[in-house]
Amino acid sequence: MSFSVSAVAAPQVLGCEDHSPTTAKWLKLLVLKCKDESGREYNWEYVERVTKYRETDGVAVFARVVAKDQPDRLLVIAQWRAPLDTFVLELPAGIIEKGETIEQVAVRELQEETGYTGVLESVTPEAPNDQGLTNSCLNFGFATVDAAAPENANPQPSPELGETLQVLLLPIKGLAGTLLQLKAQHSWAIDSRLLAFALGLDYAASISSNPASSN
Amino acid sequence: MSFSVSAVAAPQVLGCEDHSPTTAKWLKLLVLKCKDESGREYNWEYVERVTKYRETDGVAVFARVVAKDQPDRLLVIAQWRAPLDTFVLELPAGIIEKGETIEQVAVRELQEETGYTGVLESVTPEAPNDQGLTNSCLNFGFATVDAAAPENANPQPSPELGETLQVLLLPIKGLAGTLLQLKAQHSWAIDSRLLAFALGLDYAASISSNPASSN
Repeated sequence: MSFSVSAVAAPQVLGCEDHSPTTAKWLKLLVLKCKDESGREYNWEYVERVTKYRETDGVAVFARVVAKDQPDRLLVIAQWRAPLDTFVLELPAGIIEKGETIEQVAVRELQEETGYTGVLESVTPEAPNDQGLTNSCLNFGFATVDAAAPENANPQPSPELGETLQVLLLPIKGLAGTLLQLKAQHSWAIDSRLLAFALGLDYAASISSNPASSN
Repeated sequence: MSFSVSAVAAPQVLGCEDHSPTTAKWLKLLVLKCKDESGREYNWEYVERVTKYRETDGVAVFARVVAKDQPDRLLVIAQWRAPLDTFVLELPAGIIEKGETIEQVAVRELQEETGYTGVLESVTPEAPNDQGLTNSCLNFGFATVDAAAPENANPQPSPELGETLQVLLLPIKGLAGTLLQLKAQHSWAIDSRLLAFALGLDYAASISSNPASSN
């Protein structure tokens, strides 16, 4: 089924100024001058990664671990994140640098951050992370990890400086509940993309268990 | 079922410097000095909203529109976002300011951005939006909108300066496909949280249609 809408007129970007302090190495602070469809002008501050060279910044991977006679599990990392001073339950992910493809980064970051080797099956288009504040975007990859493969016999993450993490294999069934339990138990945070995915799983389960609203 | 893990040692935050340019009105650029568990020191740049006064920044609402004899639909807005210079398919959402509760902002932003009045049913804990780049977090609210209620007979959004948007009611069934179709058709973007939720719905559907992997 095709869903059709009529587009509304977009505002216009009149200019962009760089207000980054000279000390900034990784982030740029930019100010856009905009004019809306009724001619009103306004400024919009936002942040851009200095590594950004294309429409996306990074890739995050939903990696399903398949093992004989075991329920499917999702590879999740609990990574310490300086801006929040806590561990965040999140997807293995990485920044795409010049000369790299999304697919390469997805497989490499999965390997580096979790130690597991996976087969990438699909990649979504880029999606903004926090579009009021930044032009940062990511693509989602979907990968399958064969727990019985020889390369996955003894998975060892190889974190870089600034990466403190541990790897968790969480049952996909009941994922939202498990994430919330871990958060409550350890005072960790849950990445909004991972939480939204888990809420989607739950939502679908609630519909299928209640055929009256199943549409 | 309780899922237990042993926590790893967290790095330490030794200090935080404010590197914001004096022209910045909405965003602060901060630099943290960190020390990891093996004693190695490193810096981490990140951005904070000047409006942030608690653990979360805003709330985004999954609002399900229920109408007799019609499939359930999700309220989605296509909002022009200056940092990306395009419309983004996203959830109605807003920033929480001092003195406001998450619940108040959820109901108010739904009303202001879509024109619809909903009943808020639940709110998740706060979840980071892009934790490498910012401490920005949001809570997800779940609301139900009764399409037959008198207050929803003629919904009129009341956007503020800097908000150019249109309201879409998208069937929840097949949501990911509809979002991707709209993106392809209009060169819009899809918010990563909304896309992740839709991917969760799809993932659950693929499991339930293939009982061999249903676990």
